[in-house]
Amino acid sequence: MLDPQISERINASFGRQKLMQFYGAHIEQIDHGSIAIAVPPTDFLLRTSGIFHGGVIAALADTAGGYAATTLYPEDVSFLTIEFKVNFLRQAKGEMLIAKATVIKGGATITVAQTDLFIRNNDQEAQVATSLITLIKASK
Amino acid sequence: MLDPQISERINASFGRQKLMQFYGAHIEQIDHGSIAIAVPPTDFLLRTSGIFHGGVIAALADTAGGYAATTLYPEDVSFLTIEFKVNFLRQAKGEMLIAKATVIKGGATITVAQTDLFIRNNDQEAQVATSLITLIKASK
Amino acid sequence: MLDPQISERINASFGRQKLMQFYGAHIEQIDHGSIAIAVPPTDFLLRTSGIFHGGVIAALADTAGGYAATTLYPEDVSFLTIEFKVNFLRQAKGEMLIAKATVIKGGATITVAQTDLFIRNNDQEAQVATSLITLIKASK
Amino acid sequence: MLDPQISERINASFGRQKLMQFYGAHIEQIDHGSIAIAVPPTDFLLRTSGIFHGGVIAALADTAGGYAATTLYPEDVSFLTIEFKVNFLRQAKGEMLIAKATVIKGGATITVAQTDLFIRNNDQEAQVATSLITLIKASK
Repeated sequence: MLDPQISERINASFGRQKLMQFYGAHIEQIDHGSIAIAVPPTDFLLRTSGIFHGGVIAALADTAGGYAATTLYPEDVSFLTIEFKVNFLRQAKGEMLIAKATVIKGGATITVAQTDLFIRNNDQEAQVATSLITLIKASK
Repeated sequence: MLDPQISERINASFGRQKLMQFYGAHIEQIDHGSIAIAVPPTDFLLRTSGIFHGGVIAALADTAGGYAATTLYPEDVSFLTIEFKVNFLRQAKGEMLIAKATVIKGGATITVAQTDLFIRNNDQEAQVATSLITLIKASK
Repeated sequence: MLDPQISERINASFGRQKLMQFYGAHIEQIDHGSIAIAVPPTDFLLRTSGIFHGGVIAALADTAGGYAATTLYPEDVSFLTIEFKVNFLRQAKGEMLIAKATVIKGGATITVAQTDLFIRNNDQEAQVATSLITLIKASK
Repeated sequence: MLDPQISERINASFGRQKLMQFYGAHIEQIDHGSIAIAVPPTDFLLRTSGIFHGGVIAALADTAGGYAATTLYPEDVSFLTIEFKVNFLRQAKGEMLIAKATVIKGGATITVAQTDLFIRNNDQEAQVATSLITLIKASK
């Protein structure tokens, strides 16, 4: 089980992220090496056709990847994204957008995370995107 | 020179994009195969350290790439992003964030654009990110 | 179970790939939507330090992704790679390099595969790379 | 102009790369922050249709990006590829494949290079691929 102090620290950090507040995002689950973040379909996050904007999906993928990396550390660390890549698989239309990030490889310098993104409708999830995120631990 | 009708059509389409409105984005330049979009450093687009959020940079890169693709067509077309990849090169702190997108290869099905992103301070620009965007022409 | 005709067709196609012959590659497993390809550590595929060259890993990732896509079709199809991205996670040194490709999303036009790469030593596997491959079905 | 010692060092290192020897690759040009590497269309580097294999293009893109990074240093340095991404733009069929790599951003830890790839026919070049390569300086 994840150390409650890590969970608390991540929740506090997440609460300070203005972009995530603006998105109406909340953390659904935190574990060692993984996190799930959910975003409801607020009007300004959608294209005129009602699907989530790709830029919103990408921002969420990146953010979730970074937080997944911090779950591996007892101390307060932060990560910078070196680069990321996202593939859009299906149009993202539904009741909730969820980003599930997992650390594939933690390292002293470089950490790689994968974030898969899903749309939830009537408790069923369909994958709408996948992404790989390369992170570097920032010195404090 | 770019057909004024294309320019008008793109400006109208851009005006309907809620995410871009929310960002306070405006088009600085449109040419055949390229576009430049600028975003001012509004509070909620920044990290607590005052630099633009990577997710904002990525969303702008993607959006600019898609609009660059539409400049090649006289008729009303739209593009879907299949995937994109962004490398962050420097922390993006300054008076204006500018995305300059260029079509590298237009095609009947697949179009590839490159978006370079810059921070402008005192009329000087420093590159903060680069990205490659793969697009597919959407059927209407 | 996979239709034996599909398996036969893929084996025949693989046998005609000169680069794969040159690598000494062989197919370890074929299923519906997935394939595993193995390459032994022949001298010219290695860096001077004895690890597999990143370019060899990338070529194998791409090839495996394309073959995984063809397993979904009863007829003879071929795929072109639009783009791919690979993350190197660990130095790839050992008895065998194995690429395990899975189709994440098949589609009428665009198919996306993920290839994870492993080094096998004494029957134990360690992941050395991961990749995402975007493919388009080629017309015959 | 590039320090002749750097040029000599890179040529010597390139001469030890078995995969590049196998490809029949040679360096066409070295400058501060850039390099061009050429590969002739030997049979085993081609698909049955006579076009260069995507895996060969990718390996060349990666290799050229790494060497471009080393041109920035007077001392003997080596770079590891963290990740790279390549977009294939046109079928690569012709007399010579040339990779032109340029450092976009050098840094103490992370270096980013872009490699554009061209096919040369009758002294004319057409771009066949573009790629972004993220590198980390290896400790010796």
